[in-house]
Amino acid sequence: MATKRIGKQTIRLQNPPSVLATASVVGPKEGQGPLGSEFDLVEQDMLMGEKSWERAEQKMLSTACQMALSRAGFNSNQIDLMFAGDLLNQTITANFTARDLNIPFFGLYGACSTMVEGLSLGSLMIDGGFADHCLVGTSSHYASAERQYRMPVEYGGQRKPWAQWTVTASGAAIVGPPGGSPQSVTLVTTGKIMDLGVKDPNDMGSAMAPAAADTLLHHFSESGRLPSYYDLIVTGDLGSLGSELCRKLVGQGGLDLGANYDDCGVMIFDPEQDTHSGGSGCGCSASVVYGPLWKRLVKGEINRMLVVGTGALLSTVTYQQGESIPCIAHAVAIENSKEV
Amino acid sequence: MATKRIGKQTIRLQNPPSVLATASVVGPKEGQGPLGSEFDLVEQDMLMGEKSWERAEQKMLSTACQMALSRAGFNSNQIDLMFAGDLLNQTITANFTARDLNIPFFGLYGACSTMVEGLSLGSLMIDGGFADHCLVGTSSHYASAERQYRMPVEYGGQRKPWAQWTVTASGAAIVGPPGGSPQSVTLVTTGKIMDLGVKDPNDMGSAMAPAAADTLLHHFSESGRLPSYYDLIVTGDLGSLGSELCRKLVGQGGLDLGANYDDCGVMIFDPEQDTHSGGSGCGCSASVVYGPLWKRLVKGEINRMLVVGTGALLSTVTYQQGESIPCIAHAVAIENSKEV
Repeated sequence: MATKRIGKQTIRLQNPPSVLATASVVGPKEGQGPLGSEFDLVEQDMLMGEKSWERAEQKMLSTACQMALSRAGFNSNQIDLMFAGDLLNQTITANFTARDLNIPFFGLYGACSTMVEGLSLGSLMIDGGFADHCLVGTSSHYASAERQYRMPVEYGGQRKPWAQWTVTASGAAIVGPPGGSPQSVTLVTTGKIMDLGVKDPNDMGSAMAPAAADTLLHHFSESGRLPSYYDLIVTGDLGSLGSELCRKLVGQGGLDLGANYDDCGVMIFDPEQDTHSGGSGCGCSASVVYGPLWKRLVKGEINRMLVVGTGALLSTVTYQQGESIPCIAHAVAIENSKEV
Repeated sequence: MATKRIGKQTIRLQNPPSVLATASVVGPKEGQGPLGSEFDLVEQDMLMGEKSWERAEQKMLSTACQMALSRAGFNSNQIDLMFAGDLLNQTITANFTARDLNIPFFGLYGACSTMVEGLSLGSLMIDGGFADHCLVGTSSHYASAERQYRMPVEYGGQRKPWAQWTVTASGAAIVGPPGGSPQSVTLVTTGKIMDLGVKDPNDMGSAMAPAAADTLLHHFSESGRLPSYYDLIVTGDLGSLGSELCRKLVGQGGLDLGANYDDCGVMIFDPEQDTHSGGSGCGCSASVVYGPLWKRLVKGEINRMLVVGTGALLSTVTYQQGESIPCIAHAVAIENSKEV
């Protein structure tokens, strides 16, 4: 077995890369939510001064990347590799952002698992000796995503009670060599695509929960850790329905996720904000993890965090052709080095 | 600088992974082209017995993956990681194929550069000690791609004389530890996104040529190699117009690509097949490299090959919003080990 693998899906990083800086940018609704004061920047207008939702989303990702670079004390030409992707067709947000940053670029598509996919690959590149510094990031925008996947927001369609709300947000991070900061990426568990036959594009949480549970169960069995090892286990955007289902499925697998389990889609909105099952979208986990949760890590309020990025690989074409929604979940363990 | 980097964009693999097996599957038109007899499987019908173009494309990628697995003597649960992507929104071909193979999966979006993006990342994972065996693959289908990016083929729209023809094809490879075969991946040069302002979605070759030239120039200057080092330098799918432009741009950079430069988009069709500027699509480079060119490598007719995957990150949304087409190109050097 390859030296750094500790199981079928889990890699232990030999020299755990450190995360030098993170940044999060959110839209107005997210700014009004329970975590609002903990994001780095709250935009007051969904268009952010741009002429389209797509340009607004690009500006948001670009701002998060520039903010992370600046906090790490770098300009973009000091970064070796960039990993990014987003929800829009042809991952246009990531592509246009990478164009302007002029960094050697690997484009990703993992739907809302992209935040963890990027952090996984960026960390592997550092540990493998292939890069000194990587920029990783992702984003989503309520209006650009809803238009593409369901219907334009302007139509005012009725949302189903189990629907989630695509978060308007972006997040980015700079990963570097060990020792650059106390926050290290220690384990990477890569997911397989799971598909239990959910076909409702308004029910992403139920579709994604089995993928999240499968990755969690593999992570624990392969690492030999128990859920209690972590101060916080957080899934990306299962929402209230999906995260309860995930907890049940992991329980059926013999593990209790316990009181330290939460979901970024649940955390980002207050039930009174009328988002039904909670937040979703690539920017949901990216902004919550690289914003509020990172601040708690830095303060030492939490020291060991397991982030499970969850992606519903929904396509309008295959949906219309009667196919179900394949889903995936990737996990990374992030630990304060004094605790490792 | 990270130990394995030999320049801003180029990585030298310390223990060059070997490619254990490859496979290529093409459609009927490609089977009638000059390379027709050298592909592993030529489908006789564009629908391949399926009820949609999308399902046909998925069957084609799945067949190539299974063929590569079988030639390497593996079943899918012996593979540690899969890297794949395609041209369709949400990379549905790759996702559904990965679902059925049940391999830990990283989804990519690099348009027609995906073949090299996947081979690059798969090789890095082996060299980094993160995986023993990776499956990499990609595909495209004329009818599914034209419907999504331009107009349904059934409309019978007039094609512009400088247009390229999206190839119906797939290709896959199994990358493994050094010494598993004579064919090794020795250098990886990762591209930056280039955009010189081309806005015509029928002129992908001109849009992509600057990205290809930039990656080639970085590859040669960072590796210290000259174009004459390689028996074959092959770009993905610049077509006849784009490849001539690429040759000129590299010439302006001070290097002569010489007589050993060719383009998969030029090679795959005969001018009499009326494809205008030649072939394009993820499956173009994947099927030509993993099919005919691989056979020449194995026979020793060529021993050192530089493959430059070229991707036009075209989006109908940003095109309609007046944006230009960002492009990217990644390169991998593949060498018979007796020659290294």
